[in-house]
Amino acid sequence: MSVTAPQGFEAAGVAAGLKSTGRPDVAVVVNRGPRKVGAAVFTSNRAKANPILWSQQVIADRIVEAIVLNSGGANCFTGSFGFQTSHLTAEKAAELLEVSAGDILVCSTGLIGTGDEVFRGKVLDGVERGIASLSADGGQVAAEAIMTTDTVSKTAVVARDGWTIGAMAKGAGMLAPGLATMLVVITTDADLEASEADAALRRATSVSFDRLDSDGCMSTNDQVTLLVSGASGIRPDLDDFDAALAELCLELARKLQGDAEGASHDITIEVVNAATEVDAVEVGRSVARNNLFKAAIFGNDPNWGRVLAAIGTTRAEFDPYAVDVTMNGIRVCSDGGPDRPREEVDLTPRATHLLIDLKAGSATATILTNDLTHDYVHENSAYAS
Amino acid sequence: MSVTAPQGFEAAGVAAGLKSTGRPDVAVVVNRGPRKVGAAVFTSNRAKANPILWSQQVIADRIVEAIVLNSGGANCFTGSFGFQTSHLTAEKAAELLEVSAGDILVCSTGLIGTGDEVFRGKVLDGVERGIASLSADGGQVAAEAIMTTDTVSKTAVVARDGWTIGAMAKGAGMLAPGLATMLVVITTDADLEASEADAALRRATSVSFDRLDSDGCMSTNDQVTLLVSGASGIRPDLDDFDAALAELCLELARKLQGDAEGASHDITIEVVNAATEVDAVEVGRSVARNNLFKAAIFGNDPNWGRVLAAIGTTRAEFDPYAVDVTMNGIRVCSDGGPDRPREEVDLTPRATHLLIDLKAGSATATILTNDLTHDYVHENSAYAS
Repeated sequence: MSVTAPQGFEAAGVAAGLKSTGRPDVAVVVNRGPRKVGAAVFTSNRAKANPILWSQQVIADRIVEAIVLNSGGANCFTGSFGFQTSHLTAEKAAELLEVSAGDILVCSTGLIGTGDEVFRGKVLDGVERGIASLSADGGQVAAEAIMTTDTVSKTAVVARDGWTIGAMAKGAGMLAPGLATMLVVITTDADLEASEADAALRRATSVSFDRLDSDGCMSTNDQVTLLVSGASGIRPDLDDFDAALAELCLELARKLQGDAEGASHDITIEVVNAATEVDAVEVGRSVARNNLFKAAIFGNDPNWGRVLAAIGTTRAEFDPYAVDVTMNGIRVCSDGGPDRPREEVDLTPRATHLLIDLKAGSATATILTNDLTHDYVHENSAYAS
Repeated sequence: MSVTAPQGFEAAGVAAGLKSTGRPDVAVVVNRGPRKVGAAVFTSNRAKANPILWSQQVIADRIVEAIVLNSGGANCFTGSFGFQTSHLTAEKAAELLEVSAGDILVCSTGLIGTGDEVFRGKVLDGVERGIASLSADGGQVAAEAIMTTDTVSKTAVVARDGWTIGAMAKGAGMLAPGLATMLVVITTDADLEASEADAALRRATSVSFDRLDSDGCMSTNDQVTLLVSGASGIRPDLDDFDAALAELCLELARKLQGDAEGASHDITIEVVNAATEVDAVEVGRSVARNNLFKAAIFGNDPNWGRVLAAIGTTRAEFDPYAVDVTMNGIRVCSDGGPDRPREEVDLTPRATHLLIDLKAGSATATILTNDLTHDYVHENSAYAS
């Protein structure tokens, strides 16, 4: 059901010719209210795509009527012509929906540098046909229209007493909020104030999408958006809403991880007993971004030396000669030295668990990543050609 | 001629059975004086191997009689037993050379976690046989004894008026001072004070090995050592010595880059018009470490969007919409937008030049890196098994 699971939303996905395959490539999600609240988090990359520059302006007043997304072109580094395209996309949607262009978010994904006249024409055509085909059942086709190298569409729904959160996501590489790129649209019919929606979205993304680091590369186009219709008429307990939203975001993050380009292992890096949560995240990321560790996991090699070498590059509080490392339940390193024989570790399952005990405090963080494989290199060396 | 090209040095390389291939795996370089000056720079990784912990103590008084190096085992994360092995290695060499163990540097390279009783026995045996076979012609076999996954031994010699600098290096991955690992021994018969040798080494490495970033991974075992015999009796002009040492280090850095594991392109990233040199280095490194850019180069794809996306993750002063990017002489991006068609760029040569013009100042830096290839993944997934 995707983004149309909650009441108050309509969606559509149409094929506008941006994808050479002829598959759907323009999605539209419209909030029918009564509330028109929007919240969004954007890539922290300083090189931001034109739709990000546009959407940052739109979100300022936290009022959003609709969001238009396209695959098949990132409209990034396409100059002022590209920015104008994002603007025209919003204007076209606003005109057809009879709302203000300043309340229309725009997202694009695909190859950087793509955004010429032909691209513009197809996107505007897609907006027109998308709005003409909006429906309360449009969530699934909308989710398909934002896929690029994704092998499956990603959606999630969490239902509570009288209110629902629905979502669609795309992303299969350059995952690290954010790059090739992560786009997420979340909808809810719970009745939230704008400030409540914004706070809840930031909390949920900080412990889900922000902790997914597939290849250490940060997108120019990433955007996670929450749209609130309030159509259920129910004000949720805010802690309940926080928990539900975090659960939904983590489910989507795991789906993105599971579909990461070329990956053969989904690696959960759990860092425990860190001095601070910041330390735990830094340590987890340092391992998640270490090509040697990631290549070793691809080779089913429990190379804990590369884990310690990665941790050693961080500023986290720890003593290298106190650290324990456990892989898939086998403690291969204790106090910075060899423990169980590496042969005991079974790395053949796709799900891989790495536990790092820093023995420096009581803070914890979990980072999700993937291995570095031949298929990753293949997909990313052949992507643009 | 390697490390025995300058006067006052003897070297040896012997097969002690650490390598399963039966090739030389223990090297010894001895300074016969009259000066016994040593300078060294070590990995900045906080997880340091036992030989690094030992050598940092030895170098404190800047007096070095000899250096012992082994391949076939990193003696890292091998506990207090491993530290004792480094200590015993120095003691064995000191006993045979009739000097103090506190003046013997020790370096190890190979798999992290390797350093048991068997390892220790073989290293000590190698020290004994190495010292028995020292000669003024031993530079080449010493260079061969420190190779791990290197496909060629790396040596360099720079000769000036009456004095000479010679060197051997190993490293073919985990290059970034420093990881599986970079070891360099430089010798000179120029007559230098200890402080002069130390300053010259730091200057030279900062613009050579420190700017080589093959895979972003930092070794636990890296060490670059300069030994000064003063045997030529000639005090060089210090600027001349600096220049000669920098030239030699850059030559070795390029040889390491050229032999990086699995690489098919040697990429020179030249960052110009940065606000500061620190900015230029940070921008160069951000691109050197971007897997998506590196995979694109492997695929002969001039994907400048990935260059800008990498730069956007830095704190450097720049406007993404002012940056120019030129690949192998073709400016594919100007002012953050498309310029020449990507089809004009020929990426088939191994030597690849990337020029990034930040237009934010007048500082410059050059970073050396490699592409991300199937062979890199293969070599690093199969290394330990």
